[in-house]
Amino acid sequence: MSGSTLGTLFRVTNFGESHGPAIGCVIDGCPPGMALNEADIQRELDRRRPGTSRHVTQRNEPDAVEILSGVYEGRTTGTPIALLIRNQDQRSKDYGDILRTFRPGHADYAYWHKYGLRDPRGGGRSSARLTAPTVAAGAVARKWLKECFGVQLRACMTQLGTVEIPFESWEHVPNNPFFAPIADVRHLEDYMDALRKAHDSCGARLRVQASGVPVGLGEPLYDRLDADIAHAMMGLNAVKGVEIGAGFASVAQRGSEHGDALTPAGFASNHAGGVLGGISTGQDIEVSLAIKPTSSILTPRPSIDIDGQPVEVVTKGRHDPCVGIRAAPIAEALLALVVMDHALRHRAQCADVAHAVPPIAGARQV
Amino acid sequence: MSGSTLGTLFRVTNFGESHGPAIGCVIDGCPPGMALNEADIQRELDRRRPGTSRHVTQRNEPDAVEILSGVYEGRTTGTPIALLIRNQDQRSKDYGDILRTFRPGHADYAYWHKYGLRDPRGGGRSSARLTAPTVAAGAVARKWLKECFGVQLRACMTQLGTVEIPFESWEHVPNNPFFAPIADVRHLEDYMDALRKAHDSCGARLRVQASGVPVGLGEPLYDRLDADIAHAMMGLNAVKGVEIGAGFASVAQRGSEHGDALTPAGFASNHAGGVLGGISTGQDIEVSLAIKPTSSILTPRPSIDIDGQPVEVVTKGRHDPCVGIRAAPIAEALLALVVMDHALRHRAQCADVAHAVPPIAGARQV
Amino acid sequence: MSGSTLGTLFRVTNFGESHGPAIGCVIDGCPPGMALNEADIQRELDRRRPGTSRHVTQRNEPDAVEILSGVYEGRTTGTPIALLIRNQDQRSKDYGDILRTFRPGHADYAYWHKYGLRDPRGGGRSSARLTAPTVAAGAVARKWLKECFGVQLRACMTQLGTVEIPFESWEHVPNNPFFAPIADVRHLEDYMDALRKAHDSCGARLRVQASGVPVGLGEPLYDRLDADIAHAMMGLNAVKGVEIGAGFASVAQRGSEHGDALTPAGFASNHAGGVLGGISTGQDIEVSLAIKPTSSILTPRPSIDIDGQPVEVVTKGRHDPCVGIRAAPIAEALLALVVMDHALRHRAQCADVAHAVPPIAGARQV
Amino acid sequence: MSGSTLGTLFRVTNFGESHGPAIGCVIDGCPPGMALNEADIQRELDRRRPGTSRHVTQRNEPDAVEILSGVYEGRTTGTPIALLIRNQDQRSKDYGDILRTFRPGHADYAYWHKYGLRDPRGGGRSSARLTAPTVAAGAVARKWLKECFGVQLRACMTQLGTVEIPFESWEHVPNNPFFAPIADVRHLEDYMDALRKAHDSCGARLRVQASGVPVGLGEPLYDRLDADIAHAMMGLNAVKGVEIGAGFASVAQRGSEHGDALTPAGFASNHAGGVLGGISTGQDIEVSLAIKPTSSILTPRPSIDIDGQPVEVVTKGRHDPCVGIRAAPIAEALLALVVMDHALRHRAQCADVAHAVPPIAGARQV
Repeated sequence: MSGSTLGTLFRVTNFGESHGPAIGCVIDGCPPGMALNEADIQRELDRRRPGTSRHVTQRNEPDAVEILSGVYEGRTTGTPIALLIRNQDQRSKDYGDILRTFRPGHADYAYWHKYGLRDPRGGGRSSARLTAPTVAAGAVARKWLKECFGVQLRACMTQLGTVEIPFESWEHVPNNPFFAPIADVRHLEDYMDALRKAHDSCGARLRVQASGVPVGLGEPLYDRLDADIAHAMMGLNAVKGVEIGAGFASVAQRGSEHGDALTPAGFASNHAGGVLGGISTGQDIEVSLAIKPTSSILTPRPSIDIDGQPVEVVTKGRHDPCVGIRAAPIAEALLALVVMDHALRHRAQCADVAHAVPPIAGARQV
Repeated sequence: MSGSTLGTLFRVTNFGESHGPAIGCVIDGCPPGMALNEADIQRELDRRRPGTSRHVTQRNEPDAVEILSGVYEGRTTGTPIALLIRNQDQRSKDYGDILRTFRPGHADYAYWHKYGLRDPRGGGRSSARLTAPTVAAGAVARKWLKECFGVQLRACMTQLGTVEIPFESWEHVPNNPFFAPIADVRHLEDYMDALRKAHDSCGARLRVQASGVPVGLGEPLYDRLDADIAHAMMGLNAVKGVEIGAGFASVAQRGSEHGDALTPAGFASNHAGGVLGGISTGQDIEVSLAIKPTSSILTPRPSIDIDGQPVEVVTKGRHDPCVGIRAAPIAEALLALVVMDHALRHRAQCADVAHAVPPIAGARQV
Repeated sequence: MSGSTLGTLFRVTNFGESHGPAIGCVIDGCPPGMALNEADIQRELDRRRPGTSRHVTQRNEPDAVEILSGVYEGRTTGTPIALLIRNQDQRSKDYGDILRTFRPGHADYAYWHKYGLRDPRGGGRSSARLTAPTVAAGAVARKWLKECFGVQLRACMTQLGTVEIPFESWEHVPNNPFFAPIADVRHLEDYMDALRKAHDSCGARLRVQASGVPVGLGEPLYDRLDADIAHAMMGLNAVKGVEIGAGFASVAQRGSEHGDALTPAGFASNHAGGVLGGISTGQDIEVSLAIKPTSSILTPRPSIDIDGQPVEVVTKGRHDPCVGIRAAPIAEALLALVVMDHALRHRAQCADVAHAVPPIAGARQV
Repeated sequence: MSGSTLGTLFRVTNFGESHGPAIGCVIDGCPPGMALNEADIQRELDRRRPGTSRHVTQRNEPDAVEILSGVYEGRTTGTPIALLIRNQDQRSKDYGDILRTFRPGHADYAYWHKYGLRDPRGGGRSSARLTAPTVAAGAVARKWLKECFGVQLRACMTQLGTVEIPFESWEHVPNNPFFAPIADVRHLEDYMDALRKAHDSCGARLRVQASGVPVGLGEPLYDRLDADIAHAMMGLNAVKGVEIGAGFASVAQRGSEHGDALTPAGFASNHAGGVLGGISTGQDIEVSLAIKPTSSILTPRPSIDIDGQPVEVVTKGRHDPCVGIRAAPIAEALLALVVMDHALRHRAQCADVAHAVPPIAGARQV
């Protein structure tokens, strides 16, 4: 059971390898009748595309998407939407060395023991390149969420390596290559330049937000909204931690402080991060991610080969020195996919519910 | 789609409400032929049982489990194992007030808007009492994991409110009511006593570990082992954050530091927390959880009623002032369930794999 | 993966063995707010109960159902509904012989080789007794379908062994123990009496119908409405054939004859059986089932034991000489479960659809 | 929930429309290490390809398959295998008429009401063209089944319209365009020629067989092997009936006749069709299908348009006068997919089973 499908009602099945012929996905369960064309998807793909600054991998991929099915005369038909992205800039080099050694911190070792063989070309299936189909599928979900509920998805970097980034404004995010919510990113550029010179990599922390999510999405137990968000985010390459709302800070909070007071005008705070009892409250959904440093670095590292013999490994090739830099649009896409899935789940079960009272300010009903 | 099933091949379907007639679960997919009796399960249930110290809820529940199916003459038959726990200490008080108001930080508000009605008795479905069936199912999983691979599951408290708890030894954990890995817990008892007097509650941080997990469990994308662990843990009541391995600390690490070196004798460190590329490496799986403070407190809080009018809410009744105190056996159970599910998934797909080389020290093959 | 769950959004997980402590099911995904009590379910269970005529097994089981969860003050809450039926009339006889031999036509042989052990008490999991939880769950589904759409579910016997039963009227069905749509069933009683004297068993053919099903339920490919009906029906013990609409008779039909003409007043015929392209048309859904003769008979049969040695097998105990006699309420329940599941699936995906034209006469919209 | 995925552990997600840019599928869960190339798949696609005789549609489609992922250096890697087939012979005609009317017996009416819009080009998603990806996926499954167990899959036509076809030998099947198990098919050719002249269509009956299937595949309840076979077969366009083993003939059989006697040399007959209690017995799995006559015919038929007004419909274009003619390779593929899925399910749960006795002659263990 290869587990390459995300979602239950809005299902995204991802395929492809970094240097195979193509990557892509099939979206099954999209509601019919929504206007959709390739430009809607391309816009999001372009936000995560490699090669757009010196701080990311220099691999040259246009990531041009083709809609193969599920759209007729510019509208979704309700049948599966297949999306195809041809790989363009594969390198036909000799992978002999990589094939016989395991990079520290990389999926090599685990794949080798799981499958007995692996596609070594650019990391194969474990490459961050496979986040492109996720972003493409997310573009469909966020369009639907926006049209139905006005949901808005945003993400920004809040820490780069050891440098904490204060939140100034969402407006700055599209204006710098780091998705940083600050006006001046020169210290971030310097940090990255020094890192590349040191042949090393660093981690990052991201904030992801969905606003406009209606109240009532999620389930009480196991498949809770927060649980599915954690699943999606921790399923992203290199993510090592996920927080909802106050996250780890809630450990030191008292109940009288953490519990967000309700007022006739809405919630007075948002320590919950928009989810209570596994179900959305209508407040902003707030998520924080920890992304580890890239494992593919030029610094020599001790390792072993497939015979268990000690070797020294240096990873050449084109790699992101911080995969967190391009992760903002991916995290937004994942959040969109989870929220959309739960929106469909909710209306399947609860479409009959007629409330005696309307939701409080800011909360919408599916 | 109510989402009350955890797992894909080892499936646990949970049912019940805090003050309904009974709680329980159905386990579908357990391998046949394993010795199993009620004592195997009761042992784990007793570890999370309420009323065992003054620091937890005083509700008196024996949590006696009955096996209804799936076991014949002391062995699992491969058919569904239904487990039943009758609620004993329900209180038939008037819930009128609770029914019309929303407790800050509680699931009340979200349930009301999702379902249009809710079972107010002791929190109904949102009660931490529903973790008992999870623990019962986990007992079956951990027995199988132990017999097949020698997997050992452990959890301990690493922070109680503002008090950090240094790790001394796993040996101390069963000897105090906090599951703390330290010999002397008097300061924790004092902390809790003061908290109860203040009519307040606090959060906790837990460490969960699985050792002996074979290499190769997990999937490359979406349903990764770490993603499913995050899903299970964030699906536990009150959890607001999940980390694998170095977690949020990995943000400030460099790649040369984070990537665990491989040597002929095994990995030299474990920043990965036992998972690389979504797949187990054979190292200990290390998870950290943030648990928020209990929302049900005696301190009056501002809120609204179902008509949107302002009210003041005080939650009487029996509640855990820190739900993290009893969470260790639950977190172990959840980790067991995820690992077991992936063990079955792995052998479904990869039973044919014959490795040219054995796994390195400490790693086992399914 | 034990596969004991039916449905995707309205999920029924079945547990139990014929002579274990209890049988039952958990229904996950029922919409909230529907009035439901035990009498609603008991009514359907009583229709399939054993011991109600001399033509069925004389096992004495009241099949009294207890609702353990998911209902509060007489209304469904949207959380899992667990249903429990205690077995009452188990026989503690020595099963030594049965345990070592395989009954021809029975599941013994397959279970033994699949699981390496089996519960021999009354057939264990393979007993037709396990259809009781299906009927109980079906009672919930048919109540919802009736309240929302006025869907009506009916089944009758159309052949008993070699005796074809002409369709006279649905009104006769509740008035005889065969669920036969005829006024006079004396020849059926004589047929069964002779069969029992001959220590033999016979098959039956059933017609199952759902009327009032709205247009649009189902999917184009794989999980079609007709495919899921076939799955549910062939998943019923002893069923060896399933037809939709004209069924096998359609082989000899011409396209000009088979295709049901549409008129402004509705369809002019129903060879399709209410499903076109995998999706309901609003016409009656018509299903036909072939049920094989019971394998447990008093006539001695040649077989082998678990060591592969030849033996002669005679099956004593209480058995239905024709399991088809009690199958009508079960088949109705299965059809209800499938239609309900697809109703929820449909509104999850297509709730936004606003038709320019209303469905034709008799068809309703979800 | 669009339901376009078949299988649970060997999952096939199908996409595409008859006249869209491409059709295809993603196979998730294929075991790693199996030799696989495009020729393995093309061979099966060529067996169902249109235009190979005058008795099938004259649409000219090479159905050339491209493997996009999941195969490295000629071996499966265990990651998703995406298969792409470009549509070549689309016709860019005016579909205005079809778009506004409903063909009797066709999916038009149901799609329109479900989705509110539909892709009219060649039937869109409801076209039998979408069976090509199923055949492609089935080619992967049957290769694995053959290599692991020596499973052989075969299908033949047993009735064409009103003409019953006696079974002579499997050897004749590949030698005529009807997949008929007879040496002389001139009367079938005459029958089809007359039918085309009459501007009409006819149905067909098929026999499908899997031999070499090991004992123990399947589940006791709901997801039984026979239930999943029925689901897959009834999910095929135009199928209206499915039988396992004796099928509808079992209704008139007695238990003493139907139950297949076991002998030390194996089963003495196969009325069960290779499945008992939902689980394979090691005997040949025998399935029979009823396929309805094609709904797209040149004979004028009364119908309505989308405004409910009466119209007369004539379907021009290229259509199979009997879709059953090309259905044999599709039915084989579907049976292969179900058996493979259950083989993986079985070893997930029951890999630990060590039998004291070997299976009887002809049955193999997973």
